[in-house]
Amino acid sequence: MNDNLTAERATFVTHLECSLTGERYAADQLHNLSRAGRPLLVRYDLDSVRAALPRDTLAARATDLWRWRELLPVRRTANVVSLGEIETPLIPIARSGGATVWVKDEGRLPTGSFKARGLVMAVAMAKELGVTRIAMPTNGNAGAALAAYATRVGIETIVFCPEDTPEVNVREIAAQGARVWRVNGLIDDCGAIVGKGAAEGRWFDFSTLKEPYRIEGKKTMGLELAAQLGWRLPQAIFYPTGGGTGLIGMWKAFDELERLGWIGSERPRMYAVQASGCAPIVRAFEAGEEHAERWEDAHTVAAGIRVPRAVGDFLILRAVRESGGKALAVGDPAILAAVDACARQDGLLLCPEGGATLAAYHQALRDGEVDEDDEVVLFNCATGLKYPLPPAEQRLDRHGAIDFDRL
Amino acid sequence: MNDNLTAERATFVTHLECSLTGERYAADQLHNLSRAGRPLLVRYDLDSVRAALPRDTLAARATDLWRWRELLPVRRTANVVSLGEIETPLIPIARSGGATVWVKDEGRLPTGSFKARGLVMAVAMAKELGVTRIAMPTNGNAGAALAAYATRVGIETIVFCPEDTPEVNVREIAAQGARVWRVNGLIDDCGAIVGKGAAEGRWFDFSTLKEPYRIEGKKTMGLELAAQLGWRLPQAIFYPTGGGTGLIGMWKAFDELERLGWIGSERPRMYAVQASGCAPIVRAFEAGEEHAERWEDAHTVAAGIRVPRAVGDFLILRAVRESGGKALAVGDPAILAAVDACARQDGLLLCPEGGATLAAYHQALRDGEVDEDDEVVLFNCATGLKYPLPPAEQRLDRHGAIDFDRL
Ligand SMILES: Cc1ncc(COP(=O)(O)O)c(C=O)c1O
Ligand SMILES: Cc1ncc(COP(=O)(O)O)c(C=O)c1O
Repeated sequence: MNDNLTAERATFVTHLECSLTGERYAADQLHNLSRAGRPLLVRYDLDSVRAALPRDTLAARATDLWRWRELLPVRRTANVVSLGEIETPLIPIARSGGATVWVKDEGRLPTGSFKARGLVMAVAMAKELGVTRIAMPTNGNAGAALAAYATRVGIETIVFCPEDTPEVNVREIAAQGARVWRVNGLIDDCGAIVGKGAAEGRWFDFSTLKEPYRIEGKKTMGLELAAQLGWRLPQAIFYPTGGGTGLIGMWKAFDELERLGWIGSERPRMYAVQASGCAPIVRAFEAGEEHAERWEDAHTVAAGIRVPRAVGDFLILRAVRESGGKALAVGDPAILAAVDACARQDGLLLCPEGGATLAAYHQALRDGEVDEDDEVVLFNCATGLKYPLPPAEQRLDRHGAIDFDRL
Repeated sequence: MNDNLTAERATFVTHLECSLTGERYAADQLHNLSRAGRPLLVRYDLDSVRAALPRDTLAARATDLWRWRELLPVRRTANVVSLGEIETPLIPIARSGGATVWVKDEGRLPTGSFKARGLVMAVAMAKELGVTRIAMPTNGNAGAALAAYATRVGIETIVFCPEDTPEVNVREIAAQGARVWRVNGLIDDCGAIVGKGAAEGRWFDFSTLKEPYRIEGKKTMGLELAAQLGWRLPQAIFYPTGGGTGLIGMWKAFDELERLGWIGSERPRMYAVQASGCAPIVRAFEAGEEHAERWEDAHTVAAGIRVPRAVGDFLILRAVRESGGKALAVGDPAILAAVDACARQDGLLLCPEGGATLAAYHQALRDGEVDEDDEVVLFNCATGLKYPLPPAEQRLDRHGAIDFDRL
């Protein structure tokens, strides 16, 4: 049986580092943001990892997220928690995408979204560092993942979400044992409540990037992609960008993999995809800014990327620029049309955020940003089943005469 | 990259065989039921498989469903279709189950259910045998899987479901490019319409077990389980039983594995779990019958196992009896309580059919059927996200004074 969850394995964290100033922070202690108010990044002794873990040893392990243990922060195997974080498949979408377009289907992870990657890590670290009460703002999927893992390790959890969060998300959070509150505001309004409670010492603040370990979990998207492609990377990655943890995490992963000598210096162009109704990163990218201002009156069907202000804005913008990629906005009609096309032509039901990446890909193709033969990976970050689908009403009376020609 | 989908591999089907009479049928031709009106089973030259495929070769492949190619009916690699049929994880549920209880979480498969296993195989074979139009009755999940795969290979599909099929199922079937009709009746009423159209030559009938290849896909549950457990089997398996393809398929898989010399002669006790509101197999089991009569006025929250009459009834009953297991019925309140307990205590959201297996496990424990230290696998055949969850309404006004003690 898979021993990634049970084997004692060496760990290599040396310290944490402010992503803006480079200031060092001690490992194995509770942290939120740095003194400069910025995300902390976990640093490893990569030379020792290189010596301890030949790439073929890694390749021989079961393919789940915990195979990457030497590049993850959890020290004690007893703190590893799991609901089955499988390696997510790469699915070709030849008709709605193109011959060299793959969807990385993150909807197969526990609780139906890639949030499981970040939260499984953050919860394991919370357990390791003795946290007993967590609060978090969420657009839905992150709260569901937190609830599941926190319940599993017995940590009390309180989640705040915008009042129009999809019903299924609110219900799954509650069903999985967390307390959940709908707030009349957006995700940053929810974050403010969490911050206030944390300042009063009522709970530990688990907001994206305010907690240093979610990004380490999300980083596994990049590690996994490299392993799946035989230690190469695609030419372009389209990532639906809210808080941007995944994009930042993947960029960090590629850097670590290069320093291990497992991949070369080539990088994919990173495309940060947002919705036209909430595109602070796109606006900042186009204006050449290093930081992004809050987007007012944010709205989009793709609730996961309705994030008006991202604390890691400069990290997203840097990664996108260094990679030679771009930040792109697509409208809700294009998002919904892409979801429809992918399901109807390739049999793959995307979430709206995943649809946004497919729409952005086609836009980039039209603009000459990507070529038709570029190898491209689109991130579908949640199962399409969580989202309302259009009605399909056709009724048949079995007692009546059935006109088979009409069926 | 995973070459299970692209590598040319030897295939070993010799013929098909009537499950009741043993009469032989030619491979590589279209078939529905045998002349005796019973399911056909696919037979392989297992001695040649044994010679061609050392167990370690198999073990070194990527772990998806297509790794089992030598034990599957598809001849030509070009007919392999895929949406990423990953090996589903085994998840311990120590609190709501027990220390030796695992859930095999089939909700991670394409379209969110284990129906993907059967339908990916049946659609690949339909492609191989030149089928251009398919019809099928469904309680929901099978239709979704059929729609996705048939769309992917360009086969026209018409699906009939009971009128009270969950809305999400009906919508996903339509979104994925099939035509779907709600019928005022149950699944066997839908099956009658499909049968009528098939008799008129309007389409090929894809009903469970009336088409010989779904069972070969479902069989991979058993193959996979053995591989995951290091070529052993658990002491007991609890399987939510509607048409019973999965249970029959696993039983066939164990037999094939033994004939390959990959496992010994030990078998798990097979528990066929039904809902008290629709328990034809349980009634037949208890009466010592070989066949099960139609269950009238069938009703249960677990729509997937609301199957009043199963064409493979005798195969289910035989497997259960040979294994030393039992057919068990559980009530809807116990099903819902089990779903709730597993989510609230172990962070794992089961579908109602999965909840039924957990409820049945506890019943079997109380009855002394299983011991507390028996290794037990429960099948959760679909993602819990497809099913209505209880509402969880708590609202917070961010403009008001927040009473943090109350949160
Ligand atoms: C489905 C989905 N896609 C994308 C995102 C954005 O992810 P990130 O915060 O990493 O930018 C989210 C976040 O909620 C999401 O739920
Ligand atoms: C979730 C779920 N569980 C169990 C079943 C029953 O499966 P089987 O036909 O193999 O008995 C179904 C069938 O629809 C299902 O959808």
